[in-house]
Amino acid sequence: MFDEAKHLRIPGPSPVPPSVQRESSRPMVAHRSSDFMNLAKQCINDLKEVFQTNGQIAILTGSGTAAMESAVANLISPQDTALVLSGGKFGERWTELVKAYKGNPTVISIPYGQGVDVKQVEQVLQSRPDIKVVFATQNESSTAVMNDIEGIAAVTKAHDAILVVDAVSGLGGIPLYMDAWGVDVVVTGSQKCLMLPPGLSFVAANEKAINRMKANQSPRYYFNLAAYFDDVLPYTPNVALFYGLRESLRLIKEEGLENSYKRHRLMRDMVRAGIKAMGLPLFVDEESASLTVTAVSGVEGLDVEAFRKLVEKKCGVILASGQGEMKGKIFRIGHMGYATPLDMLATLAAIEVGLILSGFSVTPGIGVKAAEEVWVNAN
Amino acid sequence: MFDEAKHLRIPGPSPVPPSVQRESSRPMVAHRSSDFMNLAKQCINDLKEVFQTNGQIAILTGSGTAAMESAVANLISPQDTALVLSGGKFGERWTELVKAYKGNPTVISIPYGQGVDVKQVEQVLQSRPDIKVVFATQNESSTAVMNDIEGIAAVTKAHDAILVVDAVSGLGGIPLYMDAWGVDVVVTGSQKCLMLPPGLSFVAANEKAINRMKANQSPRYYFNLAAYFDDVLPYTPNVALFYGLRESLRLIKEEGLENSYKRHRLMRDMVRAGIKAMGLPLFVDEESASLTVTAVSGVEGLDVEAFRKLVEKKCGVILASGQGEMKGKIFRIGHMGYATPLDMLATLAAIEVGLILSGFSVTPGIGVKAAEEVWVNAN
Repeated sequence: MFDEAKHLRIPGPSPVPPSVQRESSRPMVAHRSSDFMNLAKQCINDLKEVFQTNGQIAILTGSGTAAMESAVANLISPQDTALVLSGGKFGERWTELVKAYKGNPTVISIPYGQGVDVKQVEQVLQSRPDIKVVFATQNESSTAVMNDIEGIAAVTKAHDAILVVDAVSGLGGIPLYMDAWGVDVVVTGSQKCLMLPPGLSFVAANEKAINRMKANQSPRYYFNLAAYFDDVLPYTPNVALFYGLRESLRLIKEEGLENSYKRHRLMRDMVRAGIKAMGLPLFVDEESASLTVTAVSGVEGLDVEAFRKLVEKKCGVILASGQGEMKGKIFRIGHMGYATPLDMLATLAAIEVGLILSGFSVTPGIGVKAAEEVWVNAN
Repeated sequence: MFDEAKHLRIPGPSPVPPSVQRESSRPMVAHRSSDFMNLAKQCINDLKEVFQTNGQIAILTGSGTAAMESAVANLISPQDTALVLSGGKFGERWTELVKAYKGNPTVISIPYGQGVDVKQVEQVLQSRPDIKVVFATQNESSTAVMNDIEGIAAVTKAHDAILVVDAVSGLGGIPLYMDAWGVDVVVTGSQKCLMLPPGLSFVAANEKAINRMKANQSPRYYFNLAAYFDDVLPYTPNVALFYGLRESLRLIKEEGLENSYKRHRLMRDMVRAGIKAMGLPLFVDEESASLTVTAVSGVEGLDVEAFRKLVEKKCGVILASGQGEMKGKIFRIGHMGYATPLDMLATLAAIEVGLILSGFSVTPGIGVKAAEEVWVNAN
C-alpha cells in the first residue's frame, strides 16, 4: 500500500524514532572541534549507564561485526585458545573471527533453539586452563535464543579467562549488568535496542581486559581499541549518527533502563502468547526465549517464505526469515528498540490475516486476544 | 511510552508520510522563480485529477476555513440569499461565513448524526428562486456523517444556484466527481486525505462559478480567487508544503484515486464491524457513515473523556473527542489519508484494551476478529 508505512518487525535494523532521525540529519560539523568532542564524551558517559559499567567504552564507526572483530583482534594472539559458546549464526561468527586471527577455537556447540548449558561451560573451563578468552552471545538473534550471561560470567570468574559477550541484538532491551556480573568485554551495535540506523558499534571493556589487550600480538590499527579508549575519536567518526546517538540515549534515559527491560519482556510475552493461541509452534522454550526476537516454526501445509511475502504485501508487516539452514523452517518477529505493545497486537493481527489468506485455518483475533490478556494483566 | 510513536487517529491533521515530510524540509527557494512556478502548475494539474475537474484551482496558504471563506467572499454579496445544509460544526461554519459577508442564510438543519435529505433540498430550492448559492458539506467530520453530494448536485442543477461543497475532510478519500456530478465549487484542506501538514487549502471552481465571482460585490483581497486563477502564486505561498504537495500527489497517483476510495471504504467497514462487535453503539447509520471518520457513542458506565485519555496514555492511540455539545457523548476515530487497514486493527485492539482497563466488560480480541473478517473478505 504505502511503502514507508510498513512495520519493520525484523531483529534489526529496527525502526528509528523520528527525533533520532531528525538529530541525525543535522549539518556536518568538524569532528575535531571541542563541541563535537564534548558530545562524544557525553555519549560515552551515557553509554556507561546502558552497559552498566564503569569501564572504558569505544565507539567505532562500523557494524556490530566490526565491534566483534575489534574484541578478537585485541584479545587473541596467534595460537591463543578461545572457548566459543555457539548456538547459531552469531556464535559461529566468533569462531570464524578467532580463526581469522589464527587463534584456536574450542567450540561448545549448542543445538539451534537452545541456550548455553552453564554447567557444561564450567566443566570445560575446569579442564582447560589454556583457554584465554570465552566468547558468548547474549542474544542469538538467528535462533531467537537468550543466554544466561550472569551464569556464564559466574563460572568464568573462577578461571583466568576473559569473558567477551556479543550483546549486539540485546543491549538496552535485555538485562546485562556488566560490572556486577563480572563480564569483561561487551560489544553491541547501533541498529537494535539503541534505536539508531546501522553505522556505529560499541565495545566496553574493564581494566582486566584492557590490560590483556596491551600484551596482544595481533596486527590491528582501525580496530586497535586502545586508540579509542585514549583518544575517543581517533579516526573520522560517523558524525550524523553521533547526534542521533545522543538523542537515542536521551530517550533511553527518559524511559529508564529497567522500564525498557520490562517493555521488552512484555512484548516477548505478548507475541509468544499470541503465536501459541494461533496454534503455531514456538521454536524456543520459555526459559531461553529472547526478549527482542521470537522465532516461530513452520507447520505442515504452510510455505513459510510465501507466507512472509504475503504478510508484507497484503498487511504491510515485514517479518524475518530464518538464516542459513533455518530458511523456510522458521520465521522471526523482531520486537526490539523502538517498538510498543500495540505494535505487537498489530503484528499478530497481520499474522492472523496472513495465515487465513494463505489458506491456513486459524480463528481470526485469537492471537490478538491472548496478547491483549497478557497486556491487561501486566497493567 | 514513546511520544512520537503515538497513532494519530483523529479526523485531521492526519499522519504525514515520511517522504512528504522529507520533501517539505527542502531548503527555501525563491517563489518567483520559474522552477517554483512550474512546480505549482504541476501541482494544480495533478490536483485536477483529484478534484475530478477541468475547472480552475486555487492553492491558498491558509487552513480549510480560509478556503471556505474565499468561496463565500467571492460568491456572496451583501443581502444575497444562500441555502446552507447544516448538520454539524462545519455546516454551521457555512452559516457563520455567510452572515460575516452580510448574506442571508436559509438553513436546512439536519439532526446531528444524520445525512442531508435530498428531497427536502429539492423542495426548498423549488420554492426559493432567490437562492444564489447552496453550501453543502461532503463529510461532516464533527458527527462522522457523509452526505449524498451527487444527489444534492442533481437537484441543484435544476436551479440557477451555485453549489459549493466543503470537501475538506473527504477529498481524495471519498468519491467526488466534481464535473460529472455538476458541483460548481469544491474546497478542501491539506491536512486530511491529501496527507500533508496543515497550511494549504484549495478551491476548485468551474466556469459558471467563476463568472458569478466576477460580479460579486464583497470586499476581498487575499481571498480574491481570481488572483489565484490568473497568477497561480499571487502572494507568498507556503513554499515547503508545495514540495510536500507534489510528493503527496505522486503518492495518490501511485495508489490510484479509485484504490484510495476503496481503501477508505475498507477501513470504515473494518472499524464499524469492530466497534459493533465490542457492543458499542455507532453514532451514524450505515447509509450516512463517513469513509474517513467514525463516531462511537458513549454507553452507561463509560466516562468517554477519561477513556480517551487512558487509550492515549496506556496504548498510544489518540482518539478524537466530540465537538461542542457532543463532547463526552461520542468519541471519533479518524481513518483518513495516510492510514492502512492494519492501522485499524491496531486501533481496535487499543480500544479493547482501553475498555477493559476502564472496567468496561468486553471480550478481548472480539472487535479485531470482526474487522479481520471484513479485511479477509475484501481480498
